[in-house]
Amino acid sequence: MVAVAVLGCGRIGQMHARNIARHPRTTLASVFDVHGPSAQKVAETLGVPVAASPEAIFADPAVDAVVIASSTDTHVDLLKMSVAARKPVLCEKPIDLSLSRVEDCAKAIAGTDIPIFLGFVRRFDPTHAAVAQAVRDGTIGTLHQVVVTSRDPGLASEAYLTVSGGIFRDMTIHDFDMARFVLGEEVSEVVAFGARLVDPALMERIDDIDTVSVLMRTAGGRQAIINNSRRAVYGYDQRVEAFGSAGMVASNNCRPNAMTAWGEGFTEKAAPLLDFFIERYTEAFNTEIAAFADAVEGKAAPAVTFEDGRQAQRLAEAATLSAREGRIVKLAELG
Amino acid sequence: MVAVAVLGCGRIGQMHARNIARHPRTTLASVFDVHGPSAQKVAETLGVPVAASPEAIFADPAVDAVVIASSTDTHVDLLKMSVAARKPVLCEKPIDLSLSRVEDCAKAIAGTDIPIFLGFVRRFDPTHAAVAQAVRDGTIGTLHQVVVTSRDPGLASEAYLTVSGGIFRDMTIHDFDMARFVLGEEVSEVVAFGARLVDPALMERIDDIDTVSVLMRTAGGRQAIINNSRRAVYGYDQRVEAFGSAGMVASNNCRPNAMTAWGEGFTEKAAPLLDFFIERYTEAFNTEIAAFADAVEGKAAPAVTFEDGRQAQRLAEAATLSAREGRIVKLAELG
Amino acid sequence: MVAVAVLGCGRIGQMHARNIARHPRTTLASVFDVHGPSAQKVAETLGVPVAASPEAIFADPAVDAVVIASSTDTHVDLLKMSVAARKPVLCEKPIDLSLSRVEDCAKAIAGTDIPIFLGFVRRFDPTHAAVAQAVRDGTIGTLHQVVVTSRDPGLASEAYLTVSGGIFRDMTIHDFDMARFVLGEEVSEVVAFGARLVDPALMERIDDIDTVSVLMRTAGGRQAIINNSRRAVYGYDQRVEAFGSAGMVASNNCRPNAMTAWGEGFTEKAAPLLDFFIERYTEAFNTEIAAFADAVEGKAAPAVTFEDGRQAQRLAEAATLSAREGRIVKLAELG
Amino acid sequence: MVAVAVLGCGRIGQMHARNIARHPRTTLASVFDVHGPSAQKVAETLGVPVAASPEAIFADPAVDAVVIASSTDTHVDLLKMSVAARKPVLCEKPIDLSLSRVEDCAKAIAGTDIPIFLGFVRRFDPTHAAVAQAVRDGTIGTLHQVVVTSRDPGLASEAYLTVSGGIFRDMTIHDFDMARFVLGEEVSEVVAFGARLVDPALMERIDDIDTVSVLMRTAGGRQAIINNSRRAVYGYDQRVEAFGSAGMVASNNCRPNAMTAWGEGFTEKAAPLLDFFIERYTEAFNTEIAAFADAVEGKAAPAVTFEDGRQAQRLAEAATLSAREGRIVKLAELG
Repeated sequence: MVAVAVLGCGRIGQMHARNIARHPRTTLASVFDVHGPSAQKVAETLGVPVAASPEAIFADPAVDAVVIASSTDTHVDLLKMSVAARKPVLCEKPIDLSLSRVEDCAKAIAGTDIPIFLGFVRRFDPTHAAVAQAVRDGTIGTLHQVVVTSRDPGLASEAYLTVSGGIFRDMTIHDFDMARFVLGEEVSEVVAFGARLVDPALMERIDDIDTVSVLMRTAGGRQAIINNSRRAVYGYDQRVEAFGSAGMVASNNCRPNAMTAWGEGFTEKAAPLLDFFIERYTEAFNTEIAAFADAVEGKAAPAVTFEDGRQAQRLAEAATLSAREGRIVKLAELG
Repeated sequence: MVAVAVLGCGRIGQMHARNIARHPRTTLASVFDVHGPSAQKVAETLGVPVAASPEAIFADPAVDAVVIASSTDTHVDLLKMSVAARKPVLCEKPIDLSLSRVEDCAKAIAGTDIPIFLGFVRRFDPTHAAVAQAVRDGTIGTLHQVVVTSRDPGLASEAYLTVSGGIFRDMTIHDFDMARFVLGEEVSEVVAFGARLVDPALMERIDDIDTVSVLMRTAGGRQAIINNSRRAVYGYDQRVEAFGSAGMVASNNCRPNAMTAWGEGFTEKAAPLLDFFIERYTEAFNTEIAAFADAVEGKAAPAVTFEDGRQAQRLAEAATLSAREGRIVKLAELG
Repeated sequence: MVAVAVLGCGRIGQMHARNIARHPRTTLASVFDVHGPSAQKVAETLGVPVAASPEAIFADPAVDAVVIASSTDTHVDLLKMSVAARKPVLCEKPIDLSLSRVEDCAKAIAGTDIPIFLGFVRRFDPTHAAVAQAVRDGTIGTLHQVVVTSRDPGLASEAYLTVSGGIFRDMTIHDFDMARFVLGEEVSEVVAFGARLVDPALMERIDDIDTVSVLMRTAGGRQAIINNSRRAVYGYDQRVEAFGSAGMVASNNCRPNAMTAWGEGFTEKAAPLLDFFIERYTEAFNTEIAAFADAVEGKAAPAVTFEDGRQAQRLAEAATLSAREGRIVKLAELG
Repeated sequence: MVAVAVLGCGRIGQMHARNIARHPRTTLASVFDVHGPSAQKVAETLGVPVAASPEAIFADPAVDAVVIASSTDTHVDLLKMSVAARKPVLCEKPIDLSLSRVEDCAKAIAGTDIPIFLGFVRRFDPTHAAVAQAVRDGTIGTLHQVVVTSRDPGLASEAYLTVSGGIFRDMTIHDFDMARFVLGEEVSEVVAFGARLVDPALMERIDDIDTVSVLMRTAGGRQAIINNSRRAVYGYDQRVEAFGSAGMVASNNCRPNAMTAWGEGFTEKAAPLLDFFIERYTEAFNTEIAAFADAVEGKAAPAVTFEDGRQAQRLAEAATLSAREGRIVKLAELG
C-alpha cells in the first residue's frame, strides 16, 4: 500500500483524495489546503488528518508520495519541494501558466530520480488508451492523421476562466497531450484559429476565446487537428480519431447508459453524454492512481512525465501565439 | 431483353410495371387489370398497350414472361394459365389464402419446366441477402437461432384487411419465408401467440389480431422467433438476426438518410425508418426483376420457387391454427 | 453505515464481500463459508473476521444485515434463520430449485416485516433500469412486446451445471425476472423450445438443454420473448427491447471500451462484449448494495422482493414443464 | 421532358448519359467525345446519335440543354459556347485549373440569363443535404464549426493525377464546396498543411501531395476543417459534421448493405464503405439531374451556380498557396 498525501482540496483534489482512500493499492495519509475548512471537510469525510502545511507533509516519513492538486501558481514550488523531499509526485496539469517558469522548473529538477507523474488523465481512459495502443501496434499501419474533438458541456465560472491562462493552456492542453500521445512524433508547427462564439461578451471581458480549431504537423508530415468548444449542449464531447495507411481507429463518446429510443419521427436516440470530466473519466482517474502507485513502488517509470507536461505546454504557447498573431508558429521559435 | 406483361395494376403491379419498363434487362410488353382505368393509367404513363384480357397476354408471342400482381384469389388460375401457355411467371405472394387450393395448384403444375418465381422480395434485399449468405458461408458456424422482427408502419385499410386472410397469411408470411431463407432447414413445429393491441375495435370487427409472436423449431433443433406488429410509429421495422456457434450476423434497418443529430438531452438521433415496402425494398424489387430475367432466359433456376411459396403458406396455416387453438402445431399435422 | 455479513464465499460471495467493504454506505462485518479456507482468504484480504457459523452471524448484534451467497440448497434455511433473527437479508437467486420448497418458505416467512431483498442484479443496471423506467413513464405508450436476448459467453463447469437445476432455473430465471420487470403485468402462459446445440454430449450427460427460446403472454395480451444460449463467442450478450404503441426503447450491450476500428474489408468493428456478469454488472452490483442499504435503513421497501423471486421461479418451472412436455403451460396450473 | 446532350464520354460522362437516358424527366439527345469510339460506344448502348462536334450540338434545336463532362481544359470554352447558343448547361467541376481563366470566364458570361449549373453533386446527397438543411433550419442554433472528412478509396492513375491540377483543385474542391454549402458565410482565411504519406515516390514525381488538412475561417469567426487522404483502405470516407450553439448534426458514411457481424474478438463489424463516387453518390447524381431539369424548365434557379464554382476554386487556389508558402492566406489577397 502506498500512503499518499493530497495537496489542494478543490474539486479535483477532493476527487483524488476519495479515489486514493478507496483504491486497493493506496491509502490517504493526509490532506492540505490553504483554505483550512476545505481540507477539514475532506479530512473528516475520509477519516484522515489535515496536515499543518505542505512542509509538514514533505517532512512526514509516513507519506510515501504526494498529489499536487492545488492552484496552478503553486505547482512549480510544490514540485521542487517534492523533489527536494524525495517524495514521488503526481502533479495536476498545467505545470504553470508561464512556459519560462516551466522551463526553469525543468532545469531545477533535471536529473532527479524521483518519479514525477503528470496528471494527463485521459491517457488512462480505456478507449483513448486502446486507440493509442492500436496505433503503436500497427493496427492502422503508418499513422497519417489524428483528429481530436473536445468540447466542454459548459463554461466554467468567470472567476475561474479569468485566471485560467486562456483556452489553450487550460482546456486544449489536454488535447495537445492526447495528440502527442497518439502521434508518436513531436509536433513541429502549429496554427490556430479562435473565435468568441459561445459567450462573446464574457470572452471580451476576460480577453479569451471559446471556440478554437488547431492544425499541427510533425517533422515527418503527420497531421493533427483539434477542435474545441467551451459549450456543447449535448454533453462532454470527447473523441479521437487516428487514420493511417492500413485503416482507422476511433475513440467514441461514453454515455451514462446504453439505452436507445425510437418514436414518432426519430430512431436510435441515445442519452446525452456524461456531463463532465469527473463522471467521464471516473475509470481513468482510478487507473491513473494505479499507474502512479506503480511509479512510486518502482515497478514502472511514470506513464506520463514532466517532459510530457512541458511539451503540451509548449504547444499551448505556440497555439496562443498563432491565434494572437494570425500565423503559423514553428515550435523551434520557442527555443 | 425480356418482354414482360403485368397482370394487375394496383399498387404493387404499378410498381412492377415501372421497374420493368426502366430495367436495363427487361421491357414492359403490356398490362392488364380487371378495372380498365387502372390499366389504362399505367399503360399511358409508361407508353405500352393495355391487353384485352389475361388470355390475350398468354396468347401473345411477343410476351416472354408475366408478372402476376392481381388480387390473391386470381393467383392460382393465372399461374395455371401461365404454365399452360408456357410463359415463365413471377407471382406475388401469397399463392392463395387456402392451403388446399395451393396444394391442388402444386399438383396441377407438378413437373412443369416453366420457371415459376415467387415474389418474396425480401430475399433480394442486399442486407437480408448478406445475412443469409453469411449463414450459408459458415461465417457464424452452425446456425442455432434466428430472430425476425417485422413491424409495419401502420394499418392497411379495413377493406384490405378484411380480405387479407389474417395477419399470418398476409404479413407474417414474408417473415416465414425469411426464417426459412435463413434457417436452411424445414420447420417442424410452430406456436404462435396473438393479441389485439394496436386497434382492438377494428381487430374485433374483422376477427383478426394485430400483434403476434411466433416460435418455431426445426427437426434439428434450430429455433426461429418472429415478432410482428401492425404499427410501429417509428417506421417500417425490418430486422433479422442469425446466431450460431461461431457468432452472429444481423440485418439492420435502413433510413432515408444517414444523418444523426445531437442536442439538449439526446445524442445520435437518427431519422425514422423508411415508410413502407416500396421505399424500403426499392433495390430488392429491382434485383428481383434481374433474377427473374435470369430465370426466364434460362441462366439460373428461379431464386424463389413455388415450393417456397407453399412452405411459407404451410407455416402461416400452422400459426393460424396455433393461435386459434392455443397449442403447438406440428407441420406434419397439415399433411 | 450498515454492517453486513456475507454467507458464502464462492465467486459471487467474494464479490459481494469486496463491494460491501468498499461501498461508502456499508461495512463488512464478517464472512462465513462451509469451506473454511475460502472464508479465511476473503477475510484476510478484506481485514474482517471469519464467523464461526451462520448461527454466530445471526446472533451477532454488530451485524445489521446479511447477504446469502451460499449454495442454492441452503438459501431457504438461511432465509428463515434471517427472518427469525430479524436480520434484513439480500438473498442471491434462485430461492431454491424446488418450487414447492419456495412456496413453503413463502408461507413460513409470510407477514414478516424484515426486509427480504432478492438478488436480481440486472434491475440495477443503468441501461436495463432506464428501459423499465421509460416503459413506466409511458415513453413508448402502452407496452405490447418485450424481447430479451441473453447469452452467456461460455458454459460453466459440468460440476456446476449438474446441480444447477437446469437452464431455466439457473440462467433464464434472470430473464424471467427482467421480462416481469419490464412487462408490468404477470405472465399467464409460457411455451418454451429447447435444444442441445452448443454442447450436445455434455447436455445429454446432465440431461439439460443449452439453447432455448421462450414465448410468454400476460392476461392483457402483452407478449414477451426470451432467447438464450449457453455460449456466444463474442461475449456476454445482454439486450432488452420494449415495444409499444408510441415507440420502442432498447437496452444495448456494453463493452470494455468504446473504440471502433476500420480496415481493409470492414468498418466500425467494436470490441467483444464484457466477458461475464461480474464485469458486465459491476455498476449494478454496487447500486444493488446501495438499494439494499436503503431497505435495511428503512428508507425504502426492498427494490426486489421475495415475491419477485417466487414469481420468476414459477416461470422457470412452467418453462421447464413446457419444454419437457411440448405444450403451452398456463401459470394457473402451478397452483 | 428535357432533351440533354452530353459532351465528353469518359467515366463521368458515360454515367451522366446513362442517368439522363433513364431519368423520368429527361431524354438523352446525343453525345460527343473528341475520341470518337468512346462516344460511339455510349451512343450504341443507349440508342442515341453521336454528334459531329460540340458546335453541332449547340446548333441543334432539338437539344434543350447540355452537360459538360469533357476534360477540364475544355470547360471554359464550352461554357461560353453554351451561353452564346443559349443552351442551359450543367458543367462538371472544376471550371478550370487556372483561377484567372475562371475569372475571365465569369466576366465573359456575366449577366447571362442562361442557367449555368455547377456539378457539385454532393449537395444532392440526401444525408449531406439533410445536414445543410438542418443548419439553415436552426436545428443546431448558430453554426460554430464544420468538419469535413473526405478520403478517397485509392489513388487515380498517374496519368490522371499529373494533369489534375493538384489535390486541392481536383479533390479538396468538393470539400471546399461542401464547407461553403454548410457554412452559409464566405471564408476569409485559409491555411493548409500537406504531406506525401500515401505514395511519396509518386507524389514527388508529379509534385503533388496526398494527405492534407485545411483550416478556414469566415469573417464572422466560424471555423471549418477539412481532412483529406488519397487512400483509405476501408473505402470512400465521406463525412460532414456541423456543430453549433444548440447541438450538432452529422452526415455519416454509407455502405452497400446494413449487415453487422459479431464473432470471436469483435462485435458490430460493418461492411466496408461504398467504393467510390459513382456508387456512393448514385442517388445524388440522379437528384442533380432532376434539379438541373428544374433549372432548364425555369422552375427553379440553378441549385449550384457558376459563382459557387468560382468560390470553391478560390479556396483551392488559396489552399495551394498556403501549403506551398507555409502561411495563412487571406482570400482578399486573390483579388
